[in-house]
Amino acid sequence: MCYQFLTKAGIGSASFAKDDEMSRLDLFIARMVSQRACLNHAAQLTADISGPVFELGLGNGRTYHHMCEIMPEQDIYVFERAIASHPDSTPPDDRVLLGDVFETLPLALTRFGATARLIHADLGGHNAQKNDEFARRVSPLIEPLLADGGLMVSSDRMYFETLTQIALPQDAIEGRCFIYRR
Amino acid sequence: MCYQFLTKAGIGSASFAKDDEMSRLDLFIARMVSQRACLNHAAQLTADISGPVFELGLGNGRTYHHMCEIMPEQDIYVFERAIASHPDSTPPDDRVLLGDVFETLPLALTRFGATARLIHADLGGHNAQKNDEFARRVSPLIEPLLADGGLMVSSDRMYFETLTQIALPQDAIEGRCFIYRR
Ligand SMILES: C[S@@+](CC[C@H](N)C(=O)[O-])C[C@H]1O[C@@H](n2cnc3c(N)ncnc32)[C@H](O)[C@@H]1O
Ligand code: NI
Ligand code: NI
Repeated sequence: MCYQFLTKAGIGSASFAKDDEMSRLDLFIARMVSQRACLNHAAQLTADISGPVFELGLGNGRTYHHMCEIMPEQDIYVFERAIASHPDSTPPDDRVLLGDVFETLPLALTRFGATARLIHADLGGHNAQKNDEFARRVSPLIEPLLADGGLMVSSDRMYFETLTQIALPQDAIEGRCFIYRR
Repeated sequence: MCYQFLTKAGIGSASFAKDDEMSRLDLFIARMVSQRACLNHAAQLTADISGPVFELGLGNGRTYHHMCEIMPEQDIYVFERAIASHPDSTPPDDRVLLGDVFETLPLALTRFGATARLIHADLGGHNAQKNDEFARRVSPLIEPLLADGGLMVSSDRMYFETLTQIALPQDAIEGRCFIYRR
């Protein structure tokens, strides 16, 4: 918390919170650095799997662009409700599964079977409880898509029955991202 | 560039670009880390100046939140056309100078004089040439606001007549941010 916000809340400087906590900028950088470290690690560990890569949630397209850079030879499919990414990071139409993931993930299972090399999910918003409920509901739809040895990288803890959580790489921060292996 | 984009552009894999360049995720992280390093450095160097701090451009409010964390005792004023920040990072109404900076900066000079401890500007968009033109036009309005010894941290190169550019701190990346001293 910060003086400005305390003042706004009418709390004043007497009950001043200690400012040893991280700022939103710190948290944001930590999240991005973790995401990148996990994606790099997962791409390396799955280098000999030739199946498709799935990006769940395009957003601005920064992680999609990164995945294109580190896995240039791979078919990368994007699952997104509404494309609103930076022009540099907009997938070709035939690589987009447009719509709600609760509809497009089952379609992907029919189309691709259990072949995915890497699935990355960053679908969450600001509400931790909602994100957790979402993760519980979407986990069983993601689980059957991975190839043997395929990895899933997520910004939220997932609820898989048969996948195993694996250790994070060095630059990733515990609790900010998760990696699961089939 | 990435295979997906080359395919989209109809270039195909034959003229494949080398993938040693940075991804948008890499660039974004570098920009954020630079910004944070410069703000921390500038806050430290100006610790004994008691004047106000100005944030030009609120955006999502992450750097504003960070400035609140590292300078909790300071009055931080935000110059913004339209407030659209995260609720955790929204300044109190009486700390906002709402409107175009070409109007609000001259008002700030009348109100505060040459007293500012630190001015941070991250006003630019994606177009480098437009950013540069903007920086040229806004520089003379920022220049007279700084206190003696006050610092200006910017994401763009600025065009000041009397301020001196100073060295960047360790984690900052040359050309991604700039620090000027009065
Ligand atoms: C946090 S953003 C992703 C940011 C991205 N990783 C980046 O680096 O730019 C989350 C995205 O997930 C999408 N999304 C959220 N829930 C969804 C759903 N049920 N179906 C499809 N897309 C969804 C949103 O539209 C949003 O674009
Ligand atoms: Ni705080
Ligand atoms: Ni590229």
